[in-house]
Amino acid sequence: MKQKSFDAYIIIDKKKRGLEISKDEINWFIQEFTKTKIPDYQMSALLMAMFIKGLNSKETAYLTDAMLNSGEKLKFNGKHVVDKHSTGGIGDKASFILGPIASAAGVKVPMIAGRGLGHTGGTIDKVESIKGFNVNLDLKSFAKNLNESGIVLIGQTPEIAPADRLIYALRDVTATIDNIPLITASIMSKKLAEGANGIVFDIKTGSGAFMKDKKQARLLAKSLIQTAKRFNKKAVALVTDMNQPLGQAVGHSHEIIESIETLKGKGPKDLTELSVALAAHMIFLAGKEKTLKKSFEKANKVLSDGSALEEFKKLIKRQGGDAKVVDQYDLLPQAEHKTEVKAPRDGYIENFQNDQIGLALIGLGGGRKQKSDIIDHGVGFIFHKKIGDKVKKGESILTIFHHKQQSSKAIEIAQIFLKEIISLSRKKVKSPNVILEEIGQG
Amino acid sequence: MKQKSFDAYIIIDKKKRGLEISKDEINWFIQEFTKTKIPDYQMSALLMAMFIKGLNSKETAYLTDAMLNSGEKLKFNGKHVVDKHSTGGIGDKASFILGPIASAAGVKVPMIAGRGLGHTGGTIDKVESIKGFNVNLDLKSFAKNLNESGIVLIGQTPEIAPADRLIYALRDVTATIDNIPLITASIMSKKLAEGANGIVFDIKTGSGAFMKDKKQARLLAKSLIQTAKRFNKKAVALVTDMNQPLGQAVGHSHEIIESIETLKGKGPKDLTELSVALAAHMIFLAGKEKTLKKSFEKANKVLSDGSALEEFKKLIKRQGGDAKVVDQYDLLPQAEHKTEVKAPRDGYIENFQNDQIGLALIGLGGGRKQKSDIIDHGVGFIFHKKIGDKVKKGESILTIFHHKQQSSKAIEIAQIFLKEIISLSRKKVKSPNVILEEIGQG
Repeated sequence: MKQKSFDAYIIIDKKKRGLEISKDEINWFIQEFTKTKIPDYQMSALLMAMFIKGLNSKETAYLTDAMLNSGEKLKFNGKHVVDKHSTGGIGDKASFILGPIASAAGVKVPMIAGRGLGHTGGTIDKVESIKGFNVNLDLKSFAKNLNESGIVLIGQTPEIAPADRLIYALRDVTATIDNIPLITASIMSKKLAEGANGIVFDIKTGSGAFMKDKKQARLLAKSLIQTAKRFNKKAVALVTDMNQPLGQAVGHSHEIIESIETLKGKGPKDLTELSVALAAHMIFLAGKEKTLKKSFEKANKVLSDGSALEEFKKLIKRQGGDAKVVDQYDLLPQAEHKTEVKAPRDGYIENFQNDQIGLALIGLGGGRKQKSDIIDHGVGFIFHKKIGDKVKKGESILTIFHHKQQSSKAIEIAQIFLKEIISLSRKKVKSPNVILEEIGQG
Repeated sequence: MKQKSFDAYIIIDKKKRGLEISKDEINWFIQEFTKTKIPDYQMSALLMAMFIKGLNSKETAYLTDAMLNSGEKLKFNGKHVVDKHSTGGIGDKASFILGPIASAAGVKVPMIAGRGLGHTGGTIDKVESIKGFNVNLDLKSFAKNLNESGIVLIGQTPEIAPADRLIYALRDVTATIDNIPLITASIMSKKLAEGANGIVFDIKTGSGAFMKDKKQARLLAKSLIQTAKRFNKKAVALVTDMNQPLGQAVGHSHEIIESIETLKGKGPKDLTELSVALAAHMIFLAGKEKTLKKSFEKANKVLSDGSALEEFKKLIKRQGGDAKVVDQYDLLPQAEHKTEVKAPRDGYIENFQNDQIGLALIGLGGGRKQKSDIIDHGVGFIFHKKIGDKVKKGESILTIFHHKQQSSKAIEIAQIFLKEIISLSRKKVKSPNVILEEIGQG
């Protein structure tokens, strides 16, 4: 016989009927659940009721606060601690560029990032392409590093918002992931626990993003900003295109190399544009420049004068990595074989089924099907053509980097690219902007 | 890390989006859950999605079928196996009267009944007032008894619809009880497993019923009948009043005595009327009489000629009880002390806060707060006045039967009756009909 926890019952009942639940009720439910005093089956019933009946902005903030309070909270001195959060996409390596830019401009950047699961890659997995880079600092070293230098990058730790981890695991198996208030609370509880005073959001939309639809992306952006405001944090969001990979490289080592190239001023236009814009907003939120225009100038300056690259080198060194990679790319693992995906006819690149690119990478071992899978950092894709580009029959659209024993798999993946992922148009196609919209605190 | 059961996820996701789920999906989910291969937290998420988004009549029948198929199914020869189901109320002892009436008219009545939990009493608890009465027959003896005689009464067994028991336990703690499709599947899966070919429903409505609202009671009645139809079972429902106790007696022994009195033709008007009506419908559904009118005549005949009482005596004897109780009420446990609840002024009984009467009985030990509580069969109430009756100041409205050591508790309960449960009007009040509506298979 299951024991009735009467308060839990009343709270579930209220939300099920679409009523507002109070700060105390939400906090009590989350803390008791985190202490395993409320069982999973009551939490999943509440999550489903929240999913279907919704949470208003007050309730979303209460939920964020409760999840935040389930674990440790970092606090840094000064207002210039600003972080970025991206909802994730294909080829998204902007953190490695905007972090050093912002840091070079005097912003303190406390990055706690995730690993990849599903079609999008993880920042932490990517940086581990660099031999020796230690992402497992404890929170004390994390705080010390940030205070002494400008940027620190670690993986998720159990001390930060443990309620989020427990709740996310339940949402993942009960079809309650794709919900704006629940996503908001999950993101914000972690960002607030990190001690950031300002947050710049990169909300991806398109076939390779979690939010396929621009309207939903905009709603999520607004929900995040509204919640940040309730916690007296500065925030801004860019809604950005994810209908094609960001930059040209997809795959761990390849993305690190492209990031370094971008820090050297030789990166792809879309990646450079997005990284500079996100970094400029961070500089502005941190109060390091008086205007957004000056923040853009500053970002461009530290990028072009090499000081951002220098910050990246220092970051690698501080966390135990070999900074020589910045000049010697062969220190990074790279698969030795190449298979070209060639255009079957003349035309213009019209579209990518972008999430399938992530799945193709997993097919080569460059991503996880299960949490315990080991990632091959050397496999990947380099896209020579992107949406709007003209291609001639026989011209290479992308190169697949793989191991010798994967040759038949690579041919299979090349077929999938041509049949399912890439669409060609006979008519000219407009090249999309990477930044679609800026949503401010209003 | 929780493992994703992919099919379970897809089914939850469909229902969460308000889509219809298929027969195979529902059946797979229920069977896997019953085998504990789907965890509670996925079931509770699905139940909440079903609760909020609803189930159509097809889905309700599929759920019923799946729950039915989780356990054993009895099958009897002949069409004259007909059962009754009541949604439960205060003083509802109609089973003890209609069962013997129907049985005396040649109907086979396979009663599997529940124990009380919450404010309504349980048929099984009540019959256990009779010393020796064994409600724990196994299904084989149950079927044998029914085939050889006309009526058998046992408690719920784990072999019948185990999915229902597991699901009910979850619903009870996740605020997903009060939902018509889920209630329908719970009731119907058990009734169908019992092997009844026809079912007469007594759907109570009012302050002492689960369905406080007549509209909801009518919807439940229609849902039950629709589901019965999908299983090719005959069914009819009476929507009946539960704004006051049924009959005059509330409490286990007292209700058995009143049942016997009713079988002797000396029962209260409302209890007699309802029992005869339900039994008449059972006789008609069983095909024992050609018309409903003749079925009523038959019911009245076997009641007045003593053959129904004889059936009750045989039932008691067959199941090990002492049939002498029928003539010697002092063989039934009865609390020795009485406290009268007297009218504080002249007036008319206007209303009872009927569910509180059940709670008052629990207060005396005549019901369970927890599943493990032991029931005192001897305590109870006899109502001398019911809605519409005129009372004079100082006249007794009801008698509380209790033990000597409960005297102060009885006084406290008497106060509650006057302050909270009974309302008096200065104006004349209409006495309500017990049968409000009949809903047929249409």
